[in-house]
Amino acid sequence: MAILLFTDFGADDLYVGQVEAMLDRHAPGVRVIDLLHEAPPFAVRASAHLLAALAQGLPRGHVFLGVVDPGVGSDRGAVVLRADGRSYVGPDNGLFSVVAARAASKSLWRITGHPPGVSPSFHGRDLFAPMAAAVATDDFPNENVAPAADLAVRFGGDDLAEVIYVDHYGNCFSGIRARGVSQANRLVAGGRELPHARVFADAEPGTAFWYENSNGLVEIAVARGSAARELGLTVGMPVAWAG
Amino acid sequence: MAILLFTDFGADDLYVGQVEAMLDRHAPGVRVIDLLHEAPPFAVRASAHLLAALAQGLPRGHVFLGVVDPGVGSDRGAVVLRADGRSYVGPDNGLFSVVAARAASKSLWRITGHPPGVSPSFHGRDLFAPMAAAVATDDFPNENVAPAADLAVRFGGDDLAEVIYVDHYGNCFSGIRARGVSQANRLVAGGRELPHARVFADAEPGTAFWYENSNGLVEIAVARGSAARELGLTVGMPVAWAG
Amino acid sequence: MAILLFTDFGADDLYVGQVEAMLDRHAPGVRVIDLLHEAPPFAVRASAHLLAALAQGLPRGHVFLGVVDPGVGSDRGAVVLRADGRSYVGPDNGLFSVVAARAASKSLWRITGHPPGVSPSFHGRDLFAPMAAAVATDDFPNENVAPAADLAVRFGGDDLAEVIYVDHYGNCFSGIRARGVSQANRLVAGGRELPHARVFADAEPGTAFWYENSNGLVEIAVARGSAARELGLTVGMPVAWAG
Repeated sequence: MAILLFTDFGADDLYVGQVEAMLDRHAPGVRVIDLLHEAPPFAVRASAHLLAALAQGLPRGHVFLGVVDPGVGSDRGAVVLRADGRSYVGPDNGLFSVVAARAASKSLWRITGHPPGVSPSFHGRDLFAPMAAAVATDDFPNENVAPAADLAVRFGGDDLAEVIYVDHYGNCFSGIRARGVSQANRLVAGGRELPHARVFADAEPGTAFWYENSNGLVEIAVARGSAARELGLTVGMPVAWAG
Repeated sequence: MAILLFTDFGADDLYVGQVEAMLDRHAPGVRVIDLLHEAPPFAVRASAHLLAALAQGLPRGHVFLGVVDPGVGSDRGAVVLRADGRSYVGPDNGLFSVVAARAASKSLWRITGHPPGVSPSFHGRDLFAPMAAAVATDDFPNENVAPAADLAVRFGGDDLAEVIYVDHYGNCFSGIRARGVSQANRLVAGGRELPHARVFADAEPGTAFWYENSNGLVEIAVARGSAARELGLTVGMPVAWAG
Repeated sequence: MAILLFTDFGADDLYVGQVEAMLDRHAPGVRVIDLLHEAPPFAVRASAHLLAALAQGLPRGHVFLGVVDPGVGSDRGAVVLRADGRSYVGPDNGLFSVVAARAASKSLWRITGHPPGVSPSFHGRDLFAPMAAAVATDDFPNENVAPAADLAVRFGGDDLAEVIYVDHYGNCFSGIRARGVSQANRLVAGGRELPHARVFADAEPGTAFWYENSNGLVEIAVARGSAARELGLTVGMPVAWAG
């Protein structure tokens, strides 16, 4: 079991280390894994779909500390979600709502108590990290949570026909799950119709295509090139099946 | 207890992993936390203030391996500082001098002996990492240090009225501690007078303001924008209270 | 003993965390160190020389998970190499061939069996990580490997007179080992002849020079400047001794 961090704190910035120090204090022996710290900033819906796809491929038992939280310091709530054997700690702003909508089994708690000295601008460190540590060390449910009926913000579990993430190669993840999609389908993105390829090695260098990526999502790629640059794609832009 | 790394080695570069491998060799079971590897390069004074603010919020017992060291390979000294229950290992170039000046209690050692095969350009790996591991594993003081009276370079413990760090959102940390500062104060930076806001969610999107950040420093921010870009701020630029 | 990751997955991207989660599952207590995730993309030969230089300075016993693998999904093979007491798991595309050519002792296995559900585009996570975990936990050789005679792609063990890596300061690593090279030599790179300096502190700020870097390679640097920018150097560009 590990605590996996999914945030928009920036992989190179000084926030992640402070979160990890807090986790070390409250869950000393537990491994902490940086799953992603470049979640699309302020893009809670895209991040929610990305997190759902990533978590789906990871073992049960893990605790996800998820923070994409433009409303930190406002009165948005904070939650702990248990869904299909995985736990999620973070803001109640929709970030966990795709996971929740797709889960076969789930439980939900609202975070009602705060440790002393919580910074109004860094709940990831001061509020969510101690709670994630509590979950990871089985000190949960504790006196700082209360059972809750449902999330405040819910995006639903349907696929999202948009670009939800652009990786450092320029590959563009969509929020469409690939399972069951016919390989004869052509995907429209950036004004172009793209054929399917199984792997990069099957595609002509420089040619755009779609494929099922390693997280089960429909992804747009260019072999040895950047799909984002060549097709002008960014997070939030629509994709669709030609038809 | 953990070893926390604070360097300008670059988070994405090949230096940090080599430091961590050395720490693994000499302190096998100890957690290593990447606090920051993008300390402002060559800016020892700004880094010293940033480190002081970060360390202040972290538990006692931790060992800080601090390297912002443009003089590596010259005859600048190397030190181990114990201050208020935290330990600091690195160059004697002022980097730890803000921590030292503010400490209620402190002890200082000069590093006098070198392990064999120290690279003249990578003391972080070859000299400071083994020493930090020794401190972390209680093999300290050892035969490679001697008590010292004071640091060679001392910036003093006063606040620094400059931008000392720009985070990946474009938020600009100053070296001014916020405790006790009136929220009625207006901060002058980049030729503009900025009002206070408690949190991002309280500010108008696009509006610049100052607030007490999660490390206790006065920070300049723009809600859903980049203060660095909008105000033209970089590390070293002055800030001041309007008066 | 640790598992060291050497890839072009991007330090800030979402791939490394998935690899680490897989390692955590199969080798729970083993430390994982991010040696480099910005290996020059698609540049297998340069990466092979860089890996050889890095590994050479690290303790025996470590397991290297190496992935610079533009041919993932094609029929290129996969190997486990043991060379001079270190283990290497990854593609059989030449990445380990410089290490192998320089090794005093070595053994080689071909990976012949796959765990179920291997993604055709993410062997680093699905194929190499479980195998690296098996090596690290002494579940090796196992039923998924067979002894092999030699690597399929071999770059040889000679020095490579090219830029093989540019670090975040703009320092340019060459693939030339510095041991035994006279300091009177002048290096030609980017159309300029460069003198030797022992350390950065010995060079005039702004002046380009070559020196033996902390990994034993001839490196081109500019004190307080970027050699890459000032000399126009990128990975793959030739260097030579003036003669």
